[in-house]
Amino acid sequence: MDSVRIIEIKQSVFADNDREADRVRAELKQKGTFLLNLMSSPGSGKTTTLQRTVERMKEEMRIGIMEADIDSAVDAEKMAASGVRSIQLHTGGMCHLDAGMTEQGLREIGVDDLDFVVLENVGNLVCPAEFDTGAVKNAMILSVPEGHDKPLKYPLIFTVCNALIINKIDVLPYFDFDMDKVVAYAHMRNPNLKIFPISAKTGEGVDAWCDWLREQIQDFKA
Amino acid sequence: MDSVRIIEIKQSVFADNDREADRVRAELKQKGTFLLNLMSSPGSGKTTTLQRTVERMKEEMRIGIMEADIDSAVDAEKMAASGVRSIQLHTGGMCHLDAGMTEQGLREIGVDDLDFVVLENVGNLVCPAEFDTGAVKNAMILSVPEGHDKPLKYPLIFTVCNALIINKIDVLPYFDFDMDKVVAYAHMRNPNLKIFPISAKTGEGVDAWCDWLREQIQDFKA
Repeated sequence: MDSVRIIEIKQSVFADNDREADRVRAELKQKGTFLLNLMSSPGSGKTTTLQRTVERMKEEMRIGIMEADIDSAVDAEKMAASGVRSIQLHTGGMCHLDAGMTEQGLREIGVDDLDFVVLENVGNLVCPAEFDTGAVKNAMILSVPEGHDKPLKYPLIFTVCNALIINKIDVLPYFDFDMDKVVAYAHMRNPNLKIFPISAKTGEGVDAWCDWLREQIQDFKA
Repeated sequence: MDSVRIIEIKQSVFADNDREADRVRAELKQKGTFLLNLMSSPGSGKTTTLQRTVERMKEEMRIGIMEADIDSAVDAEKMAASGVRSIQLHTGGMCHLDAGMTEQGLREIGVDDLDFVVLENVGNLVCPAEFDTGAVKNAMILSVPEGHDKPLKYPLIFTVCNALIINKIDVLPYFDFDMDKVVAYAHMRNPNLKIFPISAKTGEGVDAWCDWLREQIQDFKA
């Protein structure tokens, strides 16, 4: 690649909130509440994936959902209809959640009687990856229409996640999406990343994702 | 909506770069170079839409493209292959461009002999909308797979844009995407927003978008 000039315009604006995140994690450990931080682009199907996940797991454990959004309450209303405890966090324009905001959310939802809480982060592949929320595990969703080149363009989020859900596999025939390439690119960023191709719409692949999740929660509570 | 609790966790971290943006715009006016700031989610088809746009307009005017990205040079390589001047701006992890970064890019690409420059912003519906880059007009792409509820969830970007391209209309049959609803929601945010349903893949609708763009450039240079 030598035909294109590349100009670096680095700037450091990210606050270090690692210590606070460790404190949140220690409190969750003490209470036996597993926190999953779920990240993705806008429109990749986070809420629908959570609905499918909750349907399969809500009889086995007590689940809470924190929906972070810039402005609306669309997602929390959907999740409340799924029959689990649900709150909406408004970030007031902020593009991500940090450990302090997550802690506020946990205090509001009340984790003492919950086994498993999901933080649905703001739809954004960049900023949420920069901030440790205090979650026990991080997962992300990439949907087929977004394209298989995303691990090349948004490297950090693939590095910080434990699991990658590839959603909307029901529309694979209509997109130039190369599953082998996305797996190779994602593993280039993070060799330990667990990858789950699913369709939240049809339910295909959702069981394998839930099996992995159950295992993480059991390990954490053991 | 009274079943779901909403917690406000506002925080103000956005720098005011309006003065710098006004200065960039004044310089562009003096040089007769029209700058378009193009924003969208990751994977909505910004680069492909630009390729189709450039194909239609490059014989009429001198075009330059600044591709902003966290890390890769994938997009600038594609645009260079389209036969227009193209540079890649690396943001070093930053989730958006501000007027200062845009100014650096304009200096690097050299606008003296260009009529029309496009800044392809970082794929993100949140942060880019907060920062005036100094562009003459702002446009955004929303793709069909992302869903018609996006103007409800990411209000600001719809407010600051002059044009909304709705891309990937070729896959409308495979998604629950309500075109009437998205138009109503978008106009609720911004009654003056021009809306162009297109398929960058098939070329459908691209001419109407280019007609609007030509008109803006002519008005600016008049």
